[in-house]
Amino acid sequence: MSEASEPTNQPPTEQPEVEGQTGPSKSELKKRAKAAEKEKKAAEKAAKQQELAAQQAAAEADYAAEFYGTLPLHQSQSRPRQPRVDIASLPSRDGETVLLRARIHNSRAQGSKMVFLNLRQRIESVQALMIVAPEKVSKQMVKWTAGLATESIVLVEGVVKKSPEIIKSATVGTVEVEVSKLFLISGVEARLPFTVEDADRTEAEIEASGDQFNRVLLDTRLNNRVIDLRSQTNQAIFKIQAAVGDLFRQFLHSNGFIEIHSPKLQGAATESGASVFKVSYFKGGAFLAQSPQLAKQMAIAADFERVYEIGPVFRAEDSNTHRHLTEFMGLDLEMTIEEHYHEVMEMLDGLFISIFHGLRDKYQKEIDVVNKQFPAEEFKWREGPEGTLKLSFKEAVDLLVEDGVAREELDDINTENEKRLGRIVKAKYETDYYIIDKFPMELRPFYTMPDPTDPTLSNSYDFFMRGEEILSGAQRIHDPKLLEQQMRGKGIEPESMRGYLDGFRLGCSPHGGGGIGLERVLMLFLKLNNIRRASLFPRDPKRLEP
Amino acid sequence: MSEASEPTNQPPTEQPEVEGQTGPSKSELKKRAKAAEKEKKAAEKAAKQQELAAQQAAAEADYAAEFYGTLPLHQSQSRPRQPRVDIASLPSRDGETVLLRARIHNSRAQGSKMVFLNLRQRIESVQALMIVAPEKVSKQMVKWTAGLATESIVLVEGVVKKSPEIIKSATVGTVEVEVSKLFLISGVEARLPFTVEDADRTEAEIEASGDQFNRVLLDTRLNNRVIDLRSQTNQAIFKIQAAVGDLFRQFLHSNGFIEIHSPKLQGAATESGASVFKVSYFKGGAFLAQSPQLAKQMAIAADFERVYEIGPVFRAEDSNTHRHLTEFMGLDLEMTIEEHYHEVMEMLDGLFISIFHGLRDKYQKEIDVVNKQFPAEEFKWREGPEGTLKLSFKEAVDLLVEDGVAREELDDINTENEKRLGRIVKAKYETDYYIIDKFPMELRPFYTMPDPTDPTLSNSYDFFMRGEEILSGAQRIHDPKLLEQQMRGKGIEPESMRGYLDGFRLGCSPHGGGGIGLERVLMLFLKLNNIRRASLFPRDPKRLEP
Repeated sequence: MSEASEPTNQPPTEQPEVEGQTGPSKSELKKRAKAAEKEKKAAEKAAKQQELAAQQAAAEADYAAEFYGTLPLHQSQSRPRQPRVDIASLPSRDGETVLLRARIHNSRAQGSKMVFLNLRQRIESVQALMIVAPEKVSKQMVKWTAGLATESIVLVEGVVKKSPEIIKSATVGTVEVEVSKLFLISGVEARLPFTVEDADRTEAEIEASGDQFNRVLLDTRLNNRVIDLRSQTNQAIFKIQAAVGDLFRQFLHSNGFIEIHSPKLQGAATESGASVFKVSYFKGGAFLAQSPQLAKQMAIAADFERVYEIGPVFRAEDSNTHRHLTEFMGLDLEMTIEEHYHEVMEMLDGLFISIFHGLRDKYQKEIDVVNKQFPAEEFKWREGPEGTLKLSFKEAVDLLVEDGVAREELDDINTENEKRLGRIVKAKYETDYYIIDKFPMELRPFYTMPDPTDPTLSNSYDFFMRGEEILSGAQRIHDPKLLEQQMRGKGIEPESMRGYLDGFRLGCSPHGGGGIGLERVLMLFLKLNNIRRASLFPRDPKRLEP
Repeated sequence: MSEASEPTNQPPTEQPEVEGQTGPSKSELKKRAKAAEKEKKAAEKAAKQQELAAQQAAAEADYAAEFYGTLPLHQSQSRPRQPRVDIASLPSRDGETVLLRARIHNSRAQGSKMVFLNLRQRIESVQALMIVAPEKVSKQMVKWTAGLATESIVLVEGVVKKSPEIIKSATVGTVEVEVSKLFLISGVEARLPFTVEDADRTEAEIEASGDQFNRVLLDTRLNNRVIDLRSQTNQAIFKIQAAVGDLFRQFLHSNGFIEIHSPKLQGAATESGASVFKVSYFKGGAFLAQSPQLAKQMAIAADFERVYEIGPVFRAEDSNTHRHLTEFMGLDLEMTIEEHYHEVMEMLDGLFISIFHGLRDKYQKEIDVVNKQFPAEEFKWREGPEGTLKLSFKEAVDLLVEDGVAREELDDINTENEKRLGRIVKAKYETDYYIIDKFPMELRPFYTMPDPTDPTLSNSYDFFMRGEEILSGAQRIHDPKLLEQQMRGKGIEPESMRGYLDGFRLGCSPHGGGGIGLERVLMLFLKLNNIRRASLFPRDPKRLEP
């Protein structure tokens, strides 16, 4: 399956005969004889050259033909059970002959006898080199290898050797692989919109180059997400995303929660009709759930006691901002409370602290990878006896007023003031993470429990990271009469939510909960600045692809 | 908050005076004097009786008034931090005074001085009794308690005592609670469509009663799902559902998979246009993903190597059967393969074995609870050196032909023959779990890799439990040219799936995977006979509520 050998030299171009003349002159004949002689000599020379080329070709016959080339399409033809290794394991394999599948991250030929390859597997890479050697590696093999496109997937056999000096261009820098065989598993059949190296380049590197490097814009990345996701940064981001989910579940599992799965298809537009996607459902219509709010409360009314759900949440809001998606992952929980809704607030606080710890303790390597491209101050939170900073809504407003914001503007705290508050809190309390409790009732949804003494306030809270909201939660109303009254107050017809209300009519424990936006947590913890970077294939009002 | 005390006796009715006569006769006067005397005596008697009643009332004054009643609406008024206990922990608390929140599962008054309560928390229950005692429990308190509706949520204080004999009607039968205080947290404000006892009744019990008990039909249950879900059976089913998810993740996590979340909103109808729900998306349209197939393959093309996803899957098929839902939970995975697609098949097999083990080892109690209502032979699988039974499609067909099915019918194996095969396999191999490999190419989707030697066959497999398919999977085509060709063969325009195809054009490792229906696994493992019982709030062509 090796490529064709080099083209042989072309024979010298022949002179065309001049036609349309009758009877050659003597001088002409002489000329012709001379030409014939010349031609003969040229032919002899060509023959000789051909013979020489053949000799040379024979001398250079590709003794390495079986050691490289394109593999036939992998259709599971055989199963030799040869172990293949991870690049990360190479430092402990000095001297071993290994087999590995990797991408060609980049390659650099050194003359015709040597080629350097940077081989990549996810966030790991290693240098490989192929050097012409009798009986082993041919010039043709080197040439073919050097011609392979970046991002090709290859199967490489080689010997692991200590590298003479640390190789900075690879994550595994103490060893390199001396290649003995190299086969193409999957080639690249399209022009790369950008390289993975481009995708991973930091702003500092681009600036230092005097903007010689390609700055890959977010839209270009998202349009070509498959290649963008191959970058070290993205491999790390989505490993951390998975970690947040794992840490969420571990904490809740150890606190007696069980996972539920509630339907996303709803018979009625719930919570607030304006921002719900409509679905054609056989001969009728349905709606996509804006949150699992109603279902998880019904699970509480059904005695599940402590439930969580990780699932997609749909919002038909035409918000084209750095922090809105039309579909995102909700990490939701709901639990019964015994005495006070602060039981839930403290559970959620414990959950976040546990997630922060888990990330810092087990994913520092990935965090460092992301930080290279997205520099960020280390995420800070308070612990120990002082605990997480908890402000009442009123205290938060006072902090903003002290800082110069007009009190009249602060019926609600808008995004700008939210961020300003984040900066004030960071300066004053040295924390990127805090809670605001006791929101005004009018800012919260109908199912929020009012404060027992001040009916303008509610038993509700928001959690913040780096000055942006990442969780909203509250004690919920479990009394059907008060719930109906509140629904009417917000213009919702109770009959339209009958199944939900019935749950409370049949007796329901006091309860509360909260909903976390996974992508927001990820964006803010890593300071990615745009939520689309925290979503595998983001969806916004203008993007439904890929 | 005690009820009004009993009404006191009415004073005797007075005789009305006779009017319209002038000048009383002597006899009349005598009569009057007698009457006055009588009246005086009666008044004296009445006064005496009133005095007596007052004395009696004083004697019966509700000395227990503070020990029972309806609590004000729980708005987190205070937080005394009194620990509350689980019913399951009671056997180890003999002699302790405990506080617990529970539902009244049922109650039975014994005269006016005693009431028995069955208190329930999820799948646990305990007997409580309240007995009139001077200074502690009043008759009024017993009467009020006996009048509380089934399913009321109460806060109970009492002393845990060894019960004289095992109480069979409660799951915690060795102890009972002697109640000293009882308060209503949440009452029942609607007529119960059925009781939780009805919901938990077994068919055998109903039959033994001569059909005196209420047989709660599936539709009634689903229409009133909140109360239905409170049954022991359902509490156990959904604990096992959560366990399947946990076991799925644990196994994959320990095998290097990471979790991804792919969008359910799609720009184009994919895989097969016929069974896709259409969504209004701002000024345009979108579709709900039928599976994460394309996204997880793109994740492989993006070098994620091993991914899984747990998420909703939408099918707009008007199938009204025991095993179809329009929305269900997909447990999906995809991984690169090195040499052979059997690497994936074996990974999936290991996954199922690990789930079966986990359920048997850690959830036998819940399985037993479900079995009471849904009797089933214990689920059997093969292990050890012989391993899971693997048949080729051809071998499966041969087994059916041997059993009497006409070979002509067996181009595909329909549901009926699928079940028949399940019975044949169970009889012959004593297993409820097996794999069929090498399906005909024409039965599989366009992205399935053909067999390397026989182009009519494919590198694909289905997994079965109790004769029903629970997983479908295959090696996928990673070569863009072959993929395009296969798309065209199935009438799909490659340009409509450009984002997906581009992933392969930029180089993609050989890979394969599979998708598992969570509810099907649950239904078949527990033999629930209808998939709706395995879904918290099921969705089918006719059901979008609750």
